[in-house]
Amino acid sequence: MDKIVDEIKEFVEERDWTQFHTPDCLAKSVSIEAGELLECFQWNNDYDREHVLEELADVMCYCLQMCIALNVDPEEIIHSKMLKNAKKYPVDKAKGNAKKYTEL
Amino acid sequence: MDKIVDEIKEFVEERDWTQFHTPDCLAKSVSIEAGELLECFQWNNDYDREHVLEELADVMCYCLQMCIALNVDPEEIIHSKMLKNAKKYPVDKAKGNAKKYTEL
Amino acid sequence: MDKIVDEIKEFVEERDWTQFHTPDCLAKSVSIEAGELLECFQWNNDYDREHVLEELADVMCYCLQMCIALNVDPEEIIHSKMLKNAKKYPVDKAKGNAKKYTEL
Amino acid sequence: MDKIVDEIKEFVEERDWTQFHTPDCLAKSVSIEAGELLECFQWNNDYDREHVLEELADVMCYCLQMCIALNVDPEEIIHSKMLKNAKKYPVDKAKGNAKKYTEL
Repeated sequence: MDKIVDEIKEFVEERDWTQFHTPDCLAKSVSIEAGELLECFQWNNDYDREHVLEELADVMCYCLQMCIALNVDPEEIIHSKMLKNAKKYPVDKAKGNAKKYTEL
Repeated sequence: MDKIVDEIKEFVEERDWTQFHTPDCLAKSVSIEAGELLECFQWNNDYDREHVLEELADVMCYCLQMCIALNVDPEEIIHSKMLKNAKKYPVDKAKGNAKKYTEL
Repeated sequence: MDKIVDEIKEFVEERDWTQFHTPDCLAKSVSIEAGELLECFQWNNDYDREHVLEELADVMCYCLQMCIALNVDPEEIIHSKMLKNAKKYPVDKAKGNAKKYTEL
Repeated sequence: MDKIVDEIKEFVEERDWTQFHTPDCLAKSVSIEAGELLECFQWNNDYDREHVLEELADVMCYCLQMCIALNVDPEEIIHSKMLKNAKKYPVDKAKGNAKKYTEL
């Protein structure tokens, strides 16, 4: 993951965009791009794979920019969250079940 | 990145959740979590760092689950999109400028 | 409100779009348009008023289509929710305070 | 619609919340609530009607607060947008078709 994070960092610095990358603006950007990803599935499931991959990449790109802005390692925070999720969704209760943990 | 993707894969398989992870449902999930991330900044910039990191991890987690469902390498699709973005936002035009490429 | 709801109903029926307007697809559409509205404020507060009004209208339009699909009166469900909100946010606790009700 | 807008105005003023209701913060709020509405349909279409109506009301409520903040009549801006949509989606081309106007 280091390599892609460095690539993004360089891209942003070359364009002198760090000044715009407040956590607040990046959170808005993640939501905006998530909406564009969702648009690929607006009326049906007959999606354009290439388009989906581009929009998905955009969401991840802003997520990684947010990690950069907050100075955290993406893999570390995902791993921490997974540990929490494992407690919220114990295998025996959650298996084959799409319910929210509050309803398990 | 492989390690964290494998961790997510195992988490999902142990719970027998692959059946729910259609691209459509994962796109919805990315949007839902993006909204929760945004909520950390709803009325001001005085955010709770720990809460932000958890919500950010949730968004990334669903993005990686979408990569798994679509059978693509996250770093590869991000890299491809960065190349496209570099053309849309050439350094000389985009430097220090937050305008959309359509307005550059 | 009846007049505008009727206008939307006619617009949708003329185009034979009722078949697409499942609650699920309309919920996605509301989120997608909300993302476009948010995009008007992505990097700063220096927004284009006309553009904002159009995107805001799009969000409301899909909300009203969802009311039509679910066969409910928009004013009635807003009024009901306001009564609930009034209990969650009693004036004496919420006055001048942007905190969530769970933190009041 | 006037009645419900007045009810919302009074609710906000009683709580002295007008100070928080910048267009930027309200756009974030619309997106956040749209995400909560979408969550009702996250994994399937087997939704809880009462929950959906509440979340839908929340989205509309923030939309109307945005109309108040921007000092516009909701029905007027929806009507204006419908006229634009009617041109983008002429009946003969759009009938029974869920394609985006750019692909018609």
